[in-house]
Amino acid sequence: MSTATTPADSPSARSGSADRPEGAPLSAEIVTTGTEILLGEIVDTNAAWIAQQLREAGVNLYYKTTVGDNEPRLRGVIELGLSRSDVILVTGGLGPTADDITRQAIANATGRPLVLHEGALAALQERFARFGVPMTENNRQQALIPAGAILIENPVGTAPGFIVETERGTVIALPGVPREMKHLMTETVLPYLRARSGHTGIIRRRILRTVGIGESAIDSRLRDLMDSANPTVGLAAHMGQADVRITARAATADEAEAMLDVLEARIRERIGEFIYSTTPDEPFERAVVSLLQAAGATVAVLESDPPGILARRLSTGLESYQPVSAAWMVGAPDTPEPVQRVLAGLPAPQELSETQVQSVAQALRQATGTTYGLLWLGTAGADEGVFGRTPGKTWLAVAGPGGVTTASVPFGGQDEYTLVRISNQALGVLWQQLRTSS
Amino acid sequence: MSTATTPADSPSARSGSADRPEGAPLSAEIVTTGTEILLGEIVDTNAAWIAQQLREAGVNLYYKTTVGDNEPRLRGVIELGLSRSDVILVTGGLGPTADDITRQAIANATGRPLVLHEGALAALQERFARFGVPMTENNRQQALIPAGAILIENPVGTAPGFIVETERGTVIALPGVPREMKHLMTETVLPYLRARSGHTGIIRRRILRTVGIGESAIDSRLRDLMDSANPTVGLAAHMGQADVRITARAATADEAEAMLDVLEARIRERIGEFIYSTTPDEPFERAVVSLLQAAGATVAVLESDPPGILARRLSTGLESYQPVSAAWMVGAPDTPEPVQRVLAGLPAPQELSETQVQSVAQALRQATGTTYGLLWLGTAGADEGVFGRTPGKTWLAVAGPGGVTTASVPFGGQDEYTLVRISNQALGVLWQQLRTSS
Repeated sequence: MSTATTPADSPSARSGSADRPEGAPLSAEIVTTGTEILLGEIVDTNAAWIAQQLREAGVNLYYKTTVGDNEPRLRGVIELGLSRSDVILVTGGLGPTADDITRQAIANATGRPLVLHEGALAALQERFARFGVPMTENNRQQALIPAGAILIENPVGTAPGFIVETERGTVIALPGVPREMKHLMTETVLPYLRARSGHTGIIRRRILRTVGIGESAIDSRLRDLMDSANPTVGLAAHMGQADVRITARAATADEAEAMLDVLEARIRERIGEFIYSTTPDEPFERAVVSLLQAAGATVAVLESDPPGILARRLSTGLESYQPVSAAWMVGAPDTPEPVQRVLAGLPAPQELSETQVQSVAQALRQATGTTYGLLWLGTAGADEGVFGRTPGKTWLAVAGPGGVTTASVPFGGQDEYTLVRISNQALGVLWQQLRTSS
Repeated sequence: MSTATTPADSPSARSGSADRPEGAPLSAEIVTTGTEILLGEIVDTNAAWIAQQLREAGVNLYYKTTVGDNEPRLRGVIELGLSRSDVILVTGGLGPTADDITRQAIANATGRPLVLHEGALAALQERFARFGVPMTENNRQQALIPAGAILIENPVGTAPGFIVETERGTVIALPGVPREMKHLMTETVLPYLRARSGHTGIIRRRILRTVGIGESAIDSRLRDLMDSANPTVGLAAHMGQADVRITARAATADEAEAMLDVLEARIRERIGEFIYSTTPDEPFERAVVSLLQAAGATVAVLESDPPGILARRLSTGLESYQPVSAAWMVGAPDTPEPVQRVLAGLPAPQELSETQVQSVAQALRQATGTTYGLLWLGTAGADEGVFGRTPGKTWLAVAGPGGVTTASVPFGGQDEYTLVRISNQALGVLWQQLRTSS
């Protein structure tokens, strides 16, 4: 969950474009029509695309609503939108059939009768002539628009869009076919909104990816920063990893970047040791491998069964550099003899001492001659994971040039969530050694 | 766009569970919280899943709304939901951080103060003990629920959900993590809703996939059927293809299926020659190949450049049966000599006569010894497609055991939409021959 660019104003504070203060950003909402979208039978990809375009145009998006092909309900949603937002973007429902009710709903919500647009009709007729198919009476409906509306020509489809400007706010109708919607947005609607908003400001975002610290701990340390309206700080937790997203709005890109620099420095003072990347979507293992590569280091991995996840995470997607020079599962007959000898005398993970774990990691490093020995010794019972009920135990260790670091958690890996969590922690131990040694 | 299961009642006709007539289906809406979802940075997969589950539970879904992590706006949306629906399902915003505002928003919307739930707190403490990490003060917030709410335990995560029953309607809070949300829905919420709705009825759907007839032409022929509330008829147009979806609700599955049988028969009387499948998502080429396979038939394909689309569509995804025994692009040097000879004397597509087109298709069939010869001779200028401005021309022909069928369209292929449209028509000519000969 993230606060991002949403100011914390009250919904009742906003009542359409008439009240908008000079120079304030436009507020908008998206209304998606279509029973198939409502019922989850087809995925609405339009709304996400429109949201991104609005952000770049400096328009604040506050609501997305989906309704079925039902005129009274759609009309109600548009009326509600006019009471709280400057601009309502309606997608879909502009086709020629009985369940295409967007034209009528907008006409009713804005109190404008539908009138035939001669230019739109001529364009439709030309289009049908080109198709070589007769135009039916219901196709003519697609040339109806609310009285006084601005037509948006559609050169890539049959249904034109339109813009209805009223005292309460503006309603914009767009076809639901993504190809057509995008064309009309790009060519007409976004230039129109940019002109309307008079927006010349720039929004810049940055993402600080963390590992090894929980969402609630980040929240505790950054809570005062999260109340700021510009720049903003938001959190997004993923499986075993959390992102801090920071966003600044300023007159120029340089100014926005400078705001982000200051904010990032303040955040790093508090949680810097957990930030592994500022590249969106960069997985943690990639950051670890980058450090390994910079240090020219190699790793040997020894993991209890299941699952070989550490060796896999350190090798996936790499091309020119293979940091894992050797990997074994515990008990594999080809494990180096000195490592087997240390393992032979050891009890189950629950009974291991820290010293015993250290000795295995060190034997692994020495027997293989690698820079680091990375060890995972854990239980993996069916109900021993993070959310299980049976106690488990996992030991992690890294032997490196500066000595051995160990860590342990009171659960064991088998389900995906637990495996990601434990392997993140194991990679985190390696990462910390790499950072302090470099 | 589709009418599907949405009755055409007015939004103002419904004002919460108190007014629900005995035995009427529950009405519901979904509220998704999260600025990242609102802004399209992450895709909301929860709403579609919930929608499908609600349908199977006999609950009518009327609205889906997405709001950012903003308490006043979320509260406003919940209050609106209570004024028009029986059940409001809220997902997300139950985490421990400052922008997890769902608990507070529901408390404010329902006028119930947040109180600490001792059982929930004990479960959280146990969970943190298991993690082996200290519990922060903000984690305790996750044990707060509105006074009088029913706790929904969360064995697969930290945040519990809850159900608030009020005179105006019921609000259900669920975590946003899909794995957790699905668990709580399946184990607790769906059984609760089924019990509440007393729903024993069954919904059955069927899909009639058509090709070769436009959405508006289907609408013209079926308009009277589309006004029915049960069973319902809805249309959904895709690229070059349209689906008729029919849905029936009845006390038993047999009864619902019988209703669909009657309706399907009526629809087939009017547009049966265009229905190629009743299998959801079955592409047209698959239906054509099924007929070819049933007839033990083979096809030779000759296509003007671009794009080899017919040979590809007739071969994609097949395993045991390869209907296309030979395929050439016009001008390829390995084209059979008799075909080359016929082509040699021919003008550009715009000047071809039907007889000339027939002769090429026949030469193709005879030279290859296949059951069918399938021919596409068309222009492919940059601006000659369906939505282009320059005139184009495409001839299609199928030579088969019963003679030659031809078709032509006044445009030419290059963009994806045009290619799909023309290739659908070409496959349609083949399909009609297969149907009439079998």
